Amino acid sequence: MYEALKKRVYEANMELWHKGLVLYTWGNVSECDRANGVFAIKPSGVDYDKLKPEDIVVLSLENGERVDGTLNPSSDTPTHFELYRAFGEIGGITHTHSTCAVAWAQAGREIPCLGTTHADYMRGSIPVTRSLTPEETERAYEKETATVIVEAFQGRNPVHTPAVLVRGHGPFAWGKDGSQSVYHAVVLEEIAKMAMYTYAINPNSGELVRHVQDKHFLRKHGPNAYYGQKGK
Amino acid sequence: MYEALKKRVYEANMELWHKGLVLYTWGNVSECDRANGVFAIKPSGVDYDKLKPEDIVVLSLENGERVDGTLNPSSDTPTHFELYRAFGEIGGITHTHSTCAVAWAQAGREIPCLGTTHADYMRGSIPVTRSLTPEETERAYEKETATVIVEAFQGRNPVHTPAVLVRGHGPFAWGKDGSQSVYHAVVLEEIAKMAMYTYAINPNSGELVRHVQDKHFLRKHGPNAYYGQKGK
Amino acid sequence: MYEALKKRVYEANMELWHKGLVLYTWGNVSECDRANGVFAIKPSGVDYDKLKPEDIVVLSLENGERVDGTLNPSSDTPTHFELYRAFGEIGGITHTHSTCAVAWAQAGREIPCLGTTHADYMRGSIPVTRSLTPEETERAYEKETATVIVEAFQGRNPVHTPAVLVRGHGPFAWGKDGSQSVYHAVVLEEIAKMAMYTYAINPNSGELVRHVQDKHFLRKHGPNAYYGQKGK
Amino acid sequence: MYEALKKRVYEANMELWHKGLVLYTWGNVSECDRANGVFAIKPSGVDYDKLKPEDIVVLSLENGERVDGTLNPSSDTPTHFELYRAFGEIGGITHTHSTCAVAWAQAGREIPCLGTTHADYMRGSIPVTRSLTPEETERAYEKETATVIVEAFQGRNPVHTPAVLVRGHGPFAWGKDGSQSVYHAVVLEEIAKMAMYTYAINPNSGELVRHVQDKHFLRKHGPNAYYGQKGK
Repeated sequence: MYEALKKRVYEANMELWHKGLVLYTWGNVSECDRANGVFAIKPSGVDYDKLKPEDIVVLSLENGERVDGTLNPSSDTPTHFELYRAFGEIGGITHTHSTCAVAWAQAGREIPCLGTTHADYMRGSIPVTRSLTPEETERAYEKETATVIVEAFQGRNPVHTPAVLVRGHGPFAWGKDGSQSVYHAVVLEEIAKMAMYTYAINPNSGELVRHVQDKHFLRKHGPNAYYGQKGK
Repeated sequence: MYEALKKRVYEANMELWHKGLVLYTWGNVSECDRANGVFAIKPSGVDYDKLKPEDIVVLSLENGERVDGTLNPSSDTPTHFELYRAFGEIGGITHTHSTCAVAWAQAGREIPCLGTTHADYMRGSIPVTRSLTPEETERAYEKETATVIVEAFQGRNPVHTPAVLVRGHGPFAWGKDGSQSVYHAVVLEEIAKMAMYTYAINPNSGELVRHVQDKHFLRKHGPNAYYGQKGK
Repeated sequence: MYEALKKRVYEANMELWHKGLVLYTWGNVSECDRANGVFAIKPSGVDYDKLKPEDIVVLSLENGERVDGTLNPSSDTPTHFELYRAFGEIGGITHTHSTCAVAWAQAGREIPCLGTTHADYMRGSIPVTRSLTPEETERAYEKETATVIVEAFQGRNPVHTPAVLVRGHGPFAWGKDGSQSVYHAVVLEEIAKMAMYTYAINPNSGELVRHVQDKHFLRKHGPNAYYGQKGK
Repeated sequence: MYEALKKRVYEANMELWHKGLVLYTWGNVSECDRANGVFAIKPSGVDYDKLKPEDIVVLSLENGERVDGTLNPSSDTPTHFELYRAFGEIGGITHTHSTCAVAWAQAGREIPCLGTTHADYMRGSIPVTRSLTPEETERAYEKETATVIVEAFQGRNPVHTPAVLVRGHGPFAWGKDGSQSVYHAVVLEEIAKMAMYTYAINPNSGELVRHVQDKHFLRKHGPNAYYGQKGK
């Protein structure tokens, strides 16, 4: 069952690996199928060069229980599960330890919108979460990781800013499906590198002027978008 | 029609991609044919690994209208169009979001001539434009991007300094044809990286002494050039 | 003799090379076989692209004398030998001059635990040794390099923090066998890069909160580990 | 004539290119044959992917005139010529614009000996030349580039420190033959990167203690060297 979903999740994971964002097993991609009430995710600790479509694990969107597959799902699965429940419009999630995004997460700094590369994909800064408390860490670490992410999006639209930095940990990115969440994870890593270099050149660099931020976001998103080809 | 032009523009775009300056669809190359009053450019949002020569779009140098091809041209086409009209001696233009050049553009800093690598290709600093106003952004964003570029070259020869940083956005480079504009975009990215590292090592680094700046530029350009082989 | 051991050591050395951590001959991997009282190591100054399994040198864990092979062992062999004797639980050692780990060693700074990537593999900071004295350097440089490493682990468990920076020199990493020591050397280089970038973004970055450090280490190590697949 | 010499110089140039130190045509390697009173060098402005052994140009060590080949030699040929005459023990020279070595040259800073990677190949700091005067630049720019290099080695042994940074320009490295000069150019680039990172981590990093500098240099060089295999 779920062959098409598992194949898509397998391919999205391999795309993440081929893009060079993953060292060893440090990353995972999931995708949800809301009509069927399930999501699929990479198994835990399996090397990318040995991953096969049938290794992908399928779980219930209702209770997080495994409904297909024999391997253990990624240890970050409870975070994915809670994000699917909290952010009803997203269909795919990618977690990585990509170098520059991790550096911002470890520095505890949000990434301001410094240029149009950022503005093309993300509205405003990329937020950084607070640290988990000892109690949250003890109780349900991976589940509570989603809690601090959701907190960081209070009053913000996760579809407009499809990425976050978990403080002291690393990035999560999302999108309409697994493939797009990988795309956003790759974009985030590049934005994080550009922003680090920007401050190295000029520590007083300011944000991109607001009207250009809006312009770039809106020429790619929404009813008046004019980037790309029609029907795509 | 325009098969040879479209093939050259296709190849220049692929060269840009193979040089590693493009992530996803973040870049485009155009070339103009002034005798025939047209220029050709990459279509908008088409992945480089799927691009074909017949996808290249041809437009009028007179009014910017499409005269050949079925796809939408790059969303940056009005910038290319205006630059061809303002800079009568250039024949090719490349726009990228290459990492280090973008970092300088986001930092809002021109790149001073710090060494002979720079001086071999670019006279003086690489200028950075001012920001577009809200009115310019609203009225005709891509067209007005050319306006601020042309402003930055008041009193300067764009053939001698074939590149610019659009503030908060990224680089445009140009040359006698599409292929040379790609060459200059690659050189610019390397110069931008070297300059960033130079200031990291010594924040008080000074410009290359003027007489060596002149020497390096003139041994490669003009009637007394002696670099390379005769007739090339 | 020792064909299986030499093949494993050959493969671990090649893995180190393929991971891109070695320039020319700057690195070596060894593995010990405590049951048979020997360890095997790369020969000195042999290019990786010419290395063969039969080139691997086998030495006694008792007295450090060569017991198999005709080539000179790595000049760092006395360091490996002393570490196997001092750290009874380790089975493999990797020495590299990987760029970022060397930079920390040259800077004379230990690498604090700034995030979960670090905490997943290493408890607490990666220590940096003191400098060798002139007397130690003169007497037995490579042997005394092990002395300062062992000193740096006074009161610490080398299995929990399987890497060290030798001041002004570079990293040594270890593990249960040669292959795992390579794995830890690769992880260390990535942690070193992330930490350098973290401080570039925020010079006042603090350590990962202690309860998350513990959580990440313990979900991968010890009786309650739940990362990966059972039996692996 | 000079087929063997031209083939060696061709191969050394290609090795430089394959090591990734050359962008476009930015680099050249030469080797001299003192018995026959000639040296051979890459032609000017020829792309590396089109270079052939028969393109290599041979010149007289007596007067610098071309004695074999039809192409123009590298525009840096007078620098190579003068260095062969001033440094009687060297047999090969490499010039590059490799990124990090150029950054140090542009920063006008010598590279101190910060660690054993440096000490293994270079005694003491890598010197940086003074700027050429306007008169020197006008009179014979490439020849006078050698003048400032030779000045920088007053009282130093160029065989013990086989590299230099020409201020505002970039590195020259040398060795017993063309191949070894390439090796030293590659090592220099890595040392330059490590040193830049070292200061990024700790701006107050000190030099490697002197007794370890000596130890590392002497275990690889001179009558008591013990690195590598006998007879190599």
